[in-house]
Amino acid sequence: MDDIKEGIKYIFQTRNEATMCISGSGHAGMEAALCNLLEDGDVILFGSTGIWGHRAAEMAKRYGGDVRFVESRFGRSLNLDEIEFAFEGHKPAVFFLAQGDSSTGVMQTQLKEIGEICRKYNCLFVVDTVASLGGTEFYMDRWQVDVTYTGSQKVLGAPPGITPISFSKRAMKHIVSRKSKVKVYYFDATLVGQYWNCFGGSRIYHHTISSTLLYGLREALAQICAQGLQAVIKRHQQCSDRLQHGLSELGLEMFVPNVAVRLPTVNTVKIPVGVDWRKVADYTMRKYV
Amino acid sequence: MDDIKEGIKYIFQTRNEATMCISGSGHAGMEAALCNLLEDGDVILFGSTGIWGHRAAEMAKRYGGDVRFVESRFGRSLNLDEIEFAFEGHKPAVFFLAQGDSSTGVMQTQLKEIGEICRKYNCLFVVDTVASLGGTEFYMDRWQVDVTYTGSQKVLGAPPGITPISFSKRAMKHIVSRKSKVKVYYFDATLVGQYWNCFGGSRIYHHTISSTLLYGLREALAQICAQGLQAVIKRHQQCSDRLQHGLSELGLEMFVPNVAVRLPTVNTVKIPVGVDWRKVADYTMRKYV
Repeated sequence: MDDIKEGIKYIFQTRNEATMCISGSGHAGMEAALCNLLEDGDVILFGSTGIWGHRAAEMAKRYGGDVRFVESRFGRSLNLDEIEFAFEGHKPAVFFLAQGDSSTGVMQTQLKEIGEICRKYNCLFVVDTVASLGGTEFYMDRWQVDVTYTGSQKVLGAPPGITPISFSKRAMKHIVSRKSKVKVYYFDATLVGQYWNCFGGSRIYHHTISSTLLYGLREALAQICAQGLQAVIKRHQQCSDRLQHGLSELGLEMFVPNVAVRLPTVNTVKIPVGVDWRKVADYTMRKYV
Repeated sequence: MDDIKEGIKYIFQTRNEATMCISGSGHAGMEAALCNLLEDGDVILFGSTGIWGHRAAEMAKRYGGDVRFVESRFGRSLNLDEIEFAFEGHKPAVFFLAQGDSSTGVMQTQLKEIGEICRKYNCLFVVDTVASLGGTEFYMDRWQVDVTYTGSQKVLGAPPGITPISFSKRAMKHIVSRKSKVKVYYFDATLVGQYWNCFGGSRIYHHTISSTLLYGLREALAQICAQGLQAVIKRHQQCSDRLQHGLSELGLEMFVPNVAVRLPTVNTVKIPVGVDWRKVADYTMRKYV
């Protein structure tokens, strides 16, 4: 578990001591990020570039969060003016954003500048990197991200069912000074963190972790470390570039018009007018999955 | 997933359509049972024969439950009079009980009669079978249990990280007519049930399930089915009997005085007066784990 912790710190580019795994899928990481930060009535702003902001908002509402949105136009990312305007209007305690939205293939760039806006407005910054981490750059500490999590079965290539997550010092300070307890014992960052021995002292039992998933994740992290994060990111970008080039040669158009905000890990393609998209989806699912 | 569903119905001895898995450890099953049934202010009574009632109560409080206890004396199970007396006093909406408490080795018998008390008082009946299922008899439908879950890595012998759970028709009726949404999206029985195709229609994506854990659980269930539940239970009882006999020949005493309420899957032994229990625990952990 200590090796895994070090590996996660590397992939998130963080020194946060509260770096651990949630024993559940990526959705459980989303739950953990939200339920640790939110108390009843807290305003939480969701930056939306596809469906994932809405999925997270559905969870936040159940935790008693006062949910607001700032939405990009279809196939586009959010710009800093839109975000800052929303901060002025909503004064959120927490801002949530998916770096990559797999439903649209949009990548949200300028996370560093968004991190600065969050500090300016004294807001906690949560970034979902499930579909993006390892395929594009991400610097948790440098970009002042307070909570992030990723999917084990995406770029990492480990089995699904275990979710790396990290909380900044600022996030942990917020969590330990909550007025109410975190609503879900299973996701409580202070308890799970003790289990992962994040805070010194001894390891305290919290739940029975899956040994098979731990070994799988440890191996996947070791492979990423051996190749180096930069090399892995470069490879994903090159594959995406080649795919985009080939698609364009076939006369197909990408869903995301701006090349700079195309997610290299999920390449979304427009179905030409007159073609039945359902048939295309059925065919590709049958032939390639 | 359909094979697994059938296997779980067999081990729980139920025909409940809302039979599925939670993607998480046994603790996640406990969370799922509680957060689906409880709304803010609901009175929930915990029958306690060790630490597990208290662990569950800690979760229930976080979900806004009004938590009450009926506690057995150390090393003993609860009797029907104690339970009915507590029902009269507390009028609970939900009653929670661990069939086997691994912290004491106590088995709670008379679940059939307790199920009848629950019906009489119009109370939902939750039974934790994490430490007991497969080692002793359990009949979900016959005993009128409304929610039960078990641990994959105990008697089933599958890897940990996935948790079989089943909701009665009565429990599901209660869940769909809640005033507020279930607080945890990840554990919501109606959503997870749709993912497991419990209610007919089509399978709706909820989260990415662990394929490795599914295959492990499917194989473990197939082995139990091949041997037959009765044979597995008998084998566990015989092993426990032999162990108890050997311990008694060594002059050691069991922690649970009444033979009939000793859990066959977790055998707890008294440390003789004058012996340092910490040294015994350290030695056994070093030598046998």
